[in-house]
Amino acid sequence: MPTILGQNQYGKAETRVVKITRDGDTHHIKDLNVSVALSGDLSDVHLTGSNAHCLPTDTTKNTVYAFAKEKGIDSPEQFGIELARHFVTSQEPIHRARIRIEEYGWERIETSDANSRFIGADEVKHSFVRTGQETRLTQVTFDGEGFEVVSGLKDLTVMNSTNSEFWGYIKDRYTTLKEAYDRILATSVTGRWRFNWTGEEQRQPQWNRSYEQVKKHMLHAFAETYSLSLQQTLFQMGSRVINSRSEVDEIRFSLPNKHHFLVDLEPFGLKNDNEVYFAADRPYGLIEATVLRDGAEARIPVDLTNL
Amino acid sequence: MPTILGQNQYGKAETRVVKITRDGDTHHIKDLNVSVALSGDLSDVHLTGSNAHCLPTDTTKNTVYAFAKEKGIDSPEQFGIELARHFVTSQEPIHRARIRIEEYGWERIETSDANSRFIGADEVKHSFVRTGQETRLTQVTFDGEGFEVVSGLKDLTVMNSTNSEFWGYIKDRYTTLKEAYDRILATSVTGRWRFNWTGEEQRQPQWNRSYEQVKKHMLHAFAETYSLSLQQTLFQMGSRVINSRSEVDEIRFSLPNKHHFLVDLEPFGLKNDNEVYFAADRPYGLIEATVLRDGAEARIPVDLTNL
Amino acid sequence: MPTILGQNQYGKAETRVVKITRDGDTHHIKDLNVSVALSGDLSDVHLTGSNAHCLPTDTTKNTVYAFAKEKGIDSPEQFGIELARHFVTSQEPIHRARIRIEEYGWERIETSDANSRFIGADEVKHSFVRTGQETRLTQVTFDGEGFEVVSGLKDLTVMNSTNSEFWGYIKDRYTTLKEAYDRILATSVTGRWRFNWTGEEQRQPQWNRSYEQVKKHMLHAFAETYSLSLQQTLFQMGSRVINSRSEVDEIRFSLPNKHHFLVDLEPFGLKNDNEVYFAADRPYGLIEATVLRDGAEARIPVDLTNL
Amino acid sequence: MPTILGQNQYGKAETRVVKITRDGDTHHIKDLNVSVALSGDLSDVHLTGSNAHCLPTDTTKNTVYAFAKEKGIDSPEQFGIELARHFVTSQEPIHRARIRIEEYGWERIETSDANSRFIGADEVKHSFVRTGQETRLTQVTFDGEGFEVVSGLKDLTVMNSTNSEFWGYIKDRYTTLKEAYDRILATSVTGRWRFNWTGEEQRQPQWNRSYEQVKKHMLHAFAETYSLSLQQTLFQMGSRVINSRSEVDEIRFSLPNKHHFLVDLEPFGLKNDNEVYFAADRPYGLIEATVLRDGAEARIPVDLTNL
Repeated sequence: MPTILGQNQYGKAETRVVKITRDGDTHHIKDLNVSVALSGDLSDVHLTGSNAHCLPTDTTKNTVYAFAKEKGIDSPEQFGIELARHFVTSQEPIHRARIRIEEYGWERIETSDANSRFIGADEVKHSFVRTGQETRLTQVTFDGEGFEVVSGLKDLTVMNSTNSEFWGYIKDRYTTLKEAYDRILATSVTGRWRFNWTGEEQRQPQWNRSYEQVKKHMLHAFAETYSLSLQQTLFQMGSRVINSRSEVDEIRFSLPNKHHFLVDLEPFGLKNDNEVYFAADRPYGLIEATVLRDGAEARIPVDLTNL
Repeated sequence: MPTILGQNQYGKAETRVVKITRDGDTHHIKDLNVSVALSGDLSDVHLTGSNAHCLPTDTTKNTVYAFAKEKGIDSPEQFGIELARHFVTSQEPIHRARIRIEEYGWERIETSDANSRFIGADEVKHSFVRTGQETRLTQVTFDGEGFEVVSGLKDLTVMNSTNSEFWGYIKDRYTTLKEAYDRILATSVTGRWRFNWTGEEQRQPQWNRSYEQVKKHMLHAFAETYSLSLQQTLFQMGSRVINSRSEVDEIRFSLPNKHHFLVDLEPFGLKNDNEVYFAADRPYGLIEATVLRDGAEARIPVDLTNL
Repeated sequence: MPTILGQNQYGKAETRVVKITRDGDTHHIKDLNVSVALSGDLSDVHLTGSNAHCLPTDTTKNTVYAFAKEKGIDSPEQFGIELARHFVTSQEPIHRARIRIEEYGWERIETSDANSRFIGADEVKHSFVRTGQETRLTQVTFDGEGFEVVSGLKDLTVMNSTNSEFWGYIKDRYTTLKEAYDRILATSVTGRWRFNWTGEEQRQPQWNRSYEQVKKHMLHAFAETYSLSLQQTLFQMGSRVINSRSEVDEIRFSLPNKHHFLVDLEPFGLKNDNEVYFAADRPYGLIEATVLRDGAEARIPVDLTNL
Repeated sequence: MPTILGQNQYGKAETRVVKITRDGDTHHIKDLNVSVALSGDLSDVHLTGSNAHCLPTDTTKNTVYAFAKEKGIDSPEQFGIELARHFVTSQEPIHRARIRIEEYGWERIETSDANSRFIGADEVKHSFVRTGQETRLTQVTFDGEGFEVVSGLKDLTVMNSTNSEFWGYIKDRYTTLKEAYDRILATSVTGRWRFNWTGEEQRQPQWNRSYEQVKKHMLHAFAETYSLSLQQTLFQMGSRVINSRSEVDEIRFSLPNKHHFLVDLEPFGLKNDNEVYFAADRPYGLIEATVLRDGAEARIPVDLTNL
């Protein structure tokens, strides 16, 4: 048979685990979606149908639940590191594990405000509402030697209602776009950033604080950049993160240009002074780039995934 | 031909309008998705192909954009009232207009925090991030005589990590469910509430404040109810709104019971003390009910729509 | 407490059941998504937290699986009738049951074609591929006295590339649409039709044949109507079904006008002779109407649901 | 500034183009979703805000529409090759173009069947219905020297109701899965295959025939393989394609194991003889692998994208 097996991996995707931690009456919640992908000495599984080297995907799911109890969930990065290390070190045929995790944010329902006529002195401490903003992401890969941690986010939608221009571009036979000197700039941020932490001998970053800071720097750079193109804004966002967070060496963005077109109100005898816009769905510009710390290696793939 | 035309309506659905209002350097944003449905003397359009009574859906779209400029957008309710009144009063064949509006929330990107090393004294006032939590909804109907305003929300996901039980139910031949004395209660709230305001001679409610208060009461009632069933929690949520907001006479909820199943960790020698849960997708319990002010008429349909 | 409980219902939604029937080596497959909603003497569940009248939603799920074995699945209508009758007749507090079912279509993977070099004389009879076209729907309601069966479909996308015009409409201050004498007409059909069968004493329609015929008549009427508006096409589709199928008394459609805009190629020195179109997403016209057999009562709600 | 720009690309994503071709009264339709990504000498766009090297994404959209007229659409591969060549050869700063295309299938509405009482002798030749099955995909990359064409499909859902086993796997501390000797095997096929055609001097494959044949071989291999794991089935599917189609050198699959769990009917006194299954959503096994012609280079990325 003249065909050969190339790169392969398998595991259980999208195991949904919710962990409640109790501190007296005060509860804490972690809500994750965990996907496991294992590689190694798995040719026989594909070629002969022997499953002797195959840890079932059902077992990888069970392991996620058991580790939520045994190891706890402090951050998606810490939890991913525990899982990746486990699969590679406990099963001889498994040489590499890649753990992807989505985290959904929750905040407390505040019931103690002065306006509430219904409650007593005590605040409720076990009630939560989904924040619904961006989804936090991480991917941890372990090959038995070192770790790679690439964290990120998706679905963080932002808009500047001014301070954005676009002009001076190439005009060819098919160009009809008019230059813009004051436009809306809006995008839904998908980003991934790679940590320079690679293993046990180094102190781990404070994953949760790092995440909050990276998000804050992204938002600030988006807000504070006077933009001549979404590409330029992207580079500012990436540079701000790299310059502000020493634990991050590389960041990649995929930024759809969520077009807001000024509606022509002249047929109705009205002037549209940058007030009324049509928010379009498709098509959209798509701007993607990597920003690196000088000297760092580019390792984040060109195509960012949905998980 | 032995067939006859029944209820019919038409219009442009999902017109996406973003309105920027400038107060010096401080910008304000309203982001709506507007759907128009018109009814009236439209038999010929269906039966003979004469469009003499048909205001094009494209025109209803244009009207949305023109009104964003002419009337402004203070709240989805006010904007829907303007549109509904216009279509019925300006076109003789149009006897009834139903305007549905989704509003997406935005909040300012705060750039003036003490930690930011990058910015000067001035705060950026034209940068926004989508809150991403629930979507606010309204439906305004006008028939030339009176208005009906039904507002609502969807995709508000909440969870209580304790204070929920479910037991004492019917057991038949097909019942295998075990009684629960401490379970997670989680749902994604879809709600609609009808205002008793019906027209011009009455003072309009403060639509935006009303919305914030209804949402707050819902969340508080969810958090503060010790639940014996999702039905009981639903009734508490509805009663709290009716009792707290005199402008609302009727409220209906559609509450999926987002099951969180306790994972059996015993095979792994671990005890799961209400800590580790599997968040399931389908199937889900679906609990729906209306709560009314005593004496009020039930007018919200049984099936709540997605728009 | 000045609030009262209005219409309420509950049950397990979206129970996914796949049934395999074996006829020797030839397998048959039925793939359903079943949603149960029960009503009755359920005030105490909401008001006092007593669940004594509450059949758990988990039990309704179990019943779906048990009935797939006990009663078999010949059609979604037959299966829904079995379930609705069961809940109302077996539980005293349950006075009304509404069963909604989606059916996903599968067809055999044909392996016996002459071009296949790989297989022997025998055809494989247990392999299937999802057709992926429309989703078949039904809703069966039983109140202890009579049945109501409303079947339907969704996501059947159709297009005529000519024989569609739209002109002669109202022009008001906000009208900019140009009249069209040869346009694309495309829609994604959502339809529901009500059977005049109401109970045991009548012979049941041949549900599967009826479905195929209703779909065929809809498609033929869409294809064969020279259209002056989507409203007119809708009425022709509805009339064709009513006139052709005596078991159906009422039909309602919700038809998005999936706009295909002719692209202006003149800036590029090209003529667009109804050849190149932009397929738009939002906004879209939405045309909804009921067609009735003369004398029949209109019972299908104005808003068609997604399930 | 210690940050540098890494890989970057931009263009208009998801331009929806529908092309009608008329052959007398017989119309033909092509329905594509085209995404353009350009790379090259674009540092200044990111770093200085100069757009002198930037061909606007709006222009790439216009070019798609103009080429639909000028070059026609015979297959997504041919259309992608035209576009990729154009951008790289017409604009000096653009060194590389990647064109991704989705094609949606349509078939004629047949109106001439003997059962139709409504039509005359002539068949309608301008009416279509979406097939709704898989989406056909291609990606064409051109760097000025050679082409790479990777075609594929997604959302092709298949099921074997028998001839699938899974046993003999690793059992560790977290393994609870029971071995299966007769299970349902179902997946939704996402596949990509790379052609060995790289440029003008070679004759192009017959793209449309190649697609139909690759799909057929995949389906046949899925149906005809007695499966000991989804990995083994995947390898058979890939090998069948490579062995049958000399124009394809490499193929990669991403196959979710769409679990169908046998429902335990014993509590109801019923025996489930592989008849009644629960179709689960999440989590799911995810099996991914590449199959190569011996000697071919692996070039398809590990993560297959959605577009």
